[in-house]
Amino acid sequence: MFTENKNDSICSIGESELIAHIQNLLGDVSPPSPEGIGDDCAVIQAFEGKHIVTSDSLTYGQHFDNNITAKNAGAKLIKRNLSDIAAMGGYPNYGLLTLLCGDNLHLEWLSDFIKGIQENCEYYKIRLVGGDISSVPRGQFSSVLSLHGYVEHEPLLRSGSALGDAIYVTGNLGGSSVSKHYDFLPRLDEGRWLAEYGACSALIDITDGIAKDLRELVPPQCSAYLALERIPISEAAQGNTIRSDCPPIERAFCDGEDYELLFTIKGGSDTRIFEKAWAARFPETALSRIGQMGPSKSGASYIDASTGKDITWTKGFEHFI
Amino acid sequence: MFTENKNDSICSIGESELIAHIQNLLGDVSPPSPEGIGDDCAVIQAFEGKHIVTSDSLTYGQHFDNNITAKNAGAKLIKRNLSDIAAMGGYPNYGLLTLLCGDNLHLEWLSDFIKGIQENCEYYKIRLVGGDISSVPRGQFSSVLSLHGYVEHEPLLRSGSALGDAIYVTGNLGGSSVSKHYDFLPRLDEGRWLAEYGACSALIDITDGIAKDLRELVPPQCSAYLALERIPISEAAQGNTIRSDCPPIERAFCDGEDYELLFTIKGGSDTRIFEKAWAARFPETALSRIGQMGPSKSGASYIDASTGKDITWTKGFEHFI
Repeated sequence: MFTENKNDSICSIGESELIAHIQNLLGDVSPPSPEGIGDDCAVIQAFEGKHIVTSDSLTYGQHFDNNITAKNAGAKLIKRNLSDIAAMGGYPNYGLLTLLCGDNLHLEWLSDFIKGIQENCEYYKIRLVGGDISSVPRGQFSSVLSLHGYVEHEPLLRSGSALGDAIYVTGNLGGSSVSKHYDFLPRLDEGRWLAEYGACSALIDITDGIAKDLRELVPPQCSAYLALERIPISEAAQGNTIRSDCPPIERAFCDGEDYELLFTIKGGSDTRIFEKAWAARFPETALSRIGQMGPSKSGASYIDASTGKDITWTKGFEHFI
Repeated sequence: MFTENKNDSICSIGESELIAHIQNLLGDVSPPSPEGIGDDCAVIQAFEGKHIVTSDSLTYGQHFDNNITAKNAGAKLIKRNLSDIAAMGGYPNYGLLTLLCGDNLHLEWLSDFIKGIQENCEYYKIRLVGGDISSVPRGQFSSVLSLHGYVEHEPLLRSGSALGDAIYVTGNLGGSSVSKHYDFLPRLDEGRWLAEYGACSALIDITDGIAKDLRELVPPQCSAYLALERIPISEAAQGNTIRSDCPPIERAFCDGEDYELLFTIKGGSDTRIFEKAWAARFPETALSRIGQMGPSKSGASYIDASTGKDITWTKGFEHFI
């Protein structure tokens, strides 16, 4: 990723040449100025729908290490943002990319990183319209992507749940550090379908683990009553490869970076019809009904539905701790 | 800026508490969710005009050091972006802020940094609607701001100049490293007035020095014929405090970070009327007519108008060199 040979590093070419190189790698994903890179600002063509916007970063040593390829790192940056767009039921349309590079960053590594972004932009019809490139100390690399999009229906917020709503999760949870933290598909189709279906009251994507993220959906004076046996635990979380001191169920709750959707379906809805419609539309995407919003007794966010006792062993991922 | 005492660092509080602390500092600048921080994306209210967008970063050790206050550093980040909006003749409206912090960053320093951003957001009516906060190695700090805005008239691009256009610059150039690199006012009013006035054919803000930035405005088959005696040299560039081996005129050309406007006025226009209108509207903002776009002979971008010879000693600021 870094090199002591100046001729292989990004230093081997000047800033203007580096930007031209990146534009060349991006191809059609980089529209001509003024819609794209090349002026003081990019000029955005008008588009229909309500605008949504999100921003996510990816830092070497924090969000990825030498175990993943440059291309997968680039893909992870954009897919993290896409997962946020999915969690609103939206469509992405344009992005701004900032690269903060130590001057000994390998030019080939950066090129592959851009390629990982480019492929996803092409697939998801996103134009990269601008950004920034700048120096950080040697051996460091951070990237920030601001991603813009729109919703055709009302955006699916975190705050719409009410007493009686059923709680669902897609896919399987936990153990993402084995590979899923970069090897995932953002649930864009699923999010948009939920927005269209109409019965979804709240939606979030799981980045910090449901232990932390589900709390965002629990309405005031409510607790989430969870059927622990229904929590879908990934094979990776069941394996012995990582953190074997931690039971699989706790890992499914706390590991984070699942990039699955966690959502609620309105209490009055026929969940059987909903589940059949889901299975017909997304036969490949597992859906688990893991609980229901019920009245809060003790003030705890989560209650074990089978015992009626508070779940106290949950914790989500917190930075800076 | 950094502290070895964990109780004074951003580490002393968790991520959620830190975000709440920042929102508190931002006050009205941070609208409630879903318009602001708190959901997977921010939902943007529709607004008139053509959208424009830009992104700029500010890294410790690269764009500022311990000689400037945290508040001035925060102000610099947002004003750099505002200068890009000014260079389109636009209005800013919302931003996304990413903070990449070493975990030994002083919480008080970060609070003052945010305050510098907040004051400018309040003054320029910008809402901070989201962003990201994440860890980087100890002793490091980077920040990235994506700023959105709109233009009421056609955006003023870099590419509109033609043979015969007059070249103007605002303010005084060079020596920005003394204080101007953070102590400047983005020329938003001037940019918008130029967009409205109608005779402006191209506009850029000076970030790398006119040696590099003016090249962006020179049309094909043209050179900029410069009246070197009219280049407005700042007092700082004339002083002996910095880089005294470099003549003041070269510093005015090459120092960068002036954040002044550099623009052209259409060849057929009455420049006397334009200059009088400017002086009436902006009595405090110096305006210098520094040259004209003329036919290229040798292929050089710049020609000394008094001698007809190529200007060869110019160079702009390049990262990674």
